[in-house]
Amino acid sequence: MEPARSNPYTGRPIRVVIWGLGAMGSKMGRLLLEKPGFALVGAFDRDPSKVGRQVAEAVGLQPDASASRVAVEGEFRVVDADVAILATGSFLSDVAPLIRRALDAGMNVITIAEEMADPWAVGKELADALDRTAREKGLRILGTGINPGFILDSLIVMLTGVCSRIRSIRAERVNDLAPYGPTVLRTQGVGTTPDEFQRGVKNGNIVGHIGFPQSLRLIAHTLGWNIDRVEEERRPIVTNVPRRTAYMEVLPGQVAGCHHVARCYVGDQLVITLEHPQQITPEAEGVQTGDRIQIDGVPPIDLQIRPEIAGGEATAAIAVNMIPRALEGPPGLLRMIDLPMPAAILGPQAIWRHGGVLAGV
Amino acid sequence: MEPARSNPYTGRPIRVVIWGLGAMGSKMGRLLLEKPGFALVGAFDRDPSKVGRQVAEAVGLQPDASASRVAVEGEFRVVDADVAILATGSFLSDVAPLIRRALDAGMNVITIAEEMADPWAVGKELADALDRTAREKGLRILGTGINPGFILDSLIVMLTGVCSRIRSIRAERVNDLAPYGPTVLRTQGVGTTPDEFQRGVKNGNIVGHIGFPQSLRLIAHTLGWNIDRVEEERRPIVTNVPRRTAYMEVLPGQVAGCHHVARCYVGDQLVITLEHPQQITPEAEGVQTGDRIQIDGVPPIDLQIRPEIAGGEATAAIAVNMIPRALEGPPGLLRMIDLPMPAAILGPQAIWRHGGVLAGV
Repeated sequence: MEPARSNPYTGRPIRVVIWGLGAMGSKMGRLLLEKPGFALVGAFDRDPSKVGRQVAEAVGLQPDASASRVAVEGEFRVVDADVAILATGSFLSDVAPLIRRALDAGMNVITIAEEMADPWAVGKELADALDRTAREKGLRILGTGINPGFILDSLIVMLTGVCSRIRSIRAERVNDLAPYGPTVLRTQGVGTTPDEFQRGVKNGNIVGHIGFPQSLRLIAHTLGWNIDRVEEERRPIVTNVPRRTAYMEVLPGQVAGCHHVARCYVGDQLVITLEHPQQITPEAEGVQTGDRIQIDGVPPIDLQIRPEIAGGEATAAIAVNMIPRALEGPPGLLRMIDLPMPAAILGPQAIWRHGGVLAGV
Repeated sequence: MEPARSNPYTGRPIRVVIWGLGAMGSKMGRLLLEKPGFALVGAFDRDPSKVGRQVAEAVGLQPDASASRVAVEGEFRVVDADVAILATGSFLSDVAPLIRRALDAGMNVITIAEEMADPWAVGKELADALDRTAREKGLRILGTGINPGFILDSLIVMLTGVCSRIRSIRAERVNDLAPYGPTVLRTQGVGTTPDEFQRGVKNGNIVGHIGFPQSLRLIAHTLGWNIDRVEEERRPIVTNVPRRTAYMEVLPGQVAGCHHVARCYVGDQLVITLEHPQQITPEAEGVQTGDRIQIDGVPPIDLQIRPEIAGGEATAAIAVNMIPRALEGPPGLLRMIDLPMPAAILGPQAIWRHGGVLAGV
């Protein structure tokens, strides 16, 4: 592989459009404007306060921070681009029509929509149809992100690579919701009473983490385990002390977050447990944030990352870092486990010379 | 990708030969005899005590533990196999002729020879020649193992995938040499005086870890860093207390192991530091074994695995687990970073249906 891949990318930069300039899309926009090897050739967002502005300014850079003269447009439009980064929603059914529009425009697609990390977990027919369309057009679709996409699935899969036997896997991501605004806090039940929390879970307003079915399927499928049953449980994290963020104050006896657990069984055997307690200021009750993966196998593995990998920064980074990997992959609907492992793009050598990219896709 | 890759492997098993039945080769032999989807069709080792014996017995299983009737042969021989696992030596120059013989026999090659993790780090011409031959024959060569191959390179690369900026990387593997015999202990200077240690480093008898140039190049190359300078340092770990293993006793003032450090510079900037102190019974002086990776970047990452991933079990496992990955890869000399991430092979689904394998390679 060396001779072809070690050459610096000397052709034209990879042309990217961003669809959705929320917190995540804007972070990715900043990275794409700053990193060598990319040209941001389009940006689409419905927010009237962003439409018409220069993209550098719209994503939070100084107006003169970039040579890009691209202006934000309110609707997706066909432009000459290699890849569309889609950062508009979480659910397969919401993003599938947008993915189709990008494919029809001849663009590969990378999305941080959580359900796209393994869309077969929630919609086999729709996933198969997207896969078929992408193959017919010679294009790739990839779902990625920190979680799902990395911590509770890809990183676990990677670690199993040094195991010959595995009895069970347990992993946990403990984070702090303090940086998040009211919309996110509401979906985790922050500020509710325990009764309101239970009602919110029942009526679907309190969702917890989006991505467990995807992560479980990615792991089980890769290891060759046939999933017989998946359980999900959402418990209120009731605080014993006052907790306060810039957006919300929670009193003792109220709910500070949602402890969401997913369990995966092969037959009657519990083989994978994923836990993701999301709450504001966990340290108020002495809970340390962090990522943990424990594999009961040969050899056993007990991994900790403290504090947890910061989700926002990581999701923006991995979406950008996967661009060359996705463009080098085979056409179709891809998952992280189908591609060479992610790596930071820090210099021009990492943008590999690739037939698909240089020839235009 | 889903439709093709999710199908269980329903054709014939992957046919494997093992070349070298030492501790590592024997472990791999046991895995290959036990796991579905593989057929061990040949085993070669010069040890007269193994030649002629049934392979199951030679690798330490009960003689009737496997249906395999393959007997160990003293010399490599052309058999009809998809892949040869090579576990005979550490150095590129030693294994290159053996790799050529396997390629000439039409076999893909997976080797745990440390220098093969990235042979370009030590022998560009020889690596290029192997790469060329493999491509011409439509075969693959892959170097893997726990270290180099995983902890101090692939796992680091994987983690950088969630980073947008990196100032520097520091990683460390602290292990216990107590399980190892006199040959390994000698190469780490265990039992010498500090003076003897320094002389041993100078005359090449005390080598420390084999693999730092490979790991450094794998990381730097993937990130797009141009290495300007690499330093390696081997320091004696002088014990303050008596330390004892089944094979060796070391007294206070004597050397209990080798602290081997490698540093990689871009310009004058220290960008990667890899440390691998190898000693007997580190806990005798309160040193905990473990793997640690620290990335000074955006986001920052601080990862610990405690205790360290057991090297012998992990090396055997990853060599076997990478077999289907390597067979699915493009022809040529491959590195771990060129292939989809490793994953444990636990069920038949993980042996993917693959053109190369089903059609015979």
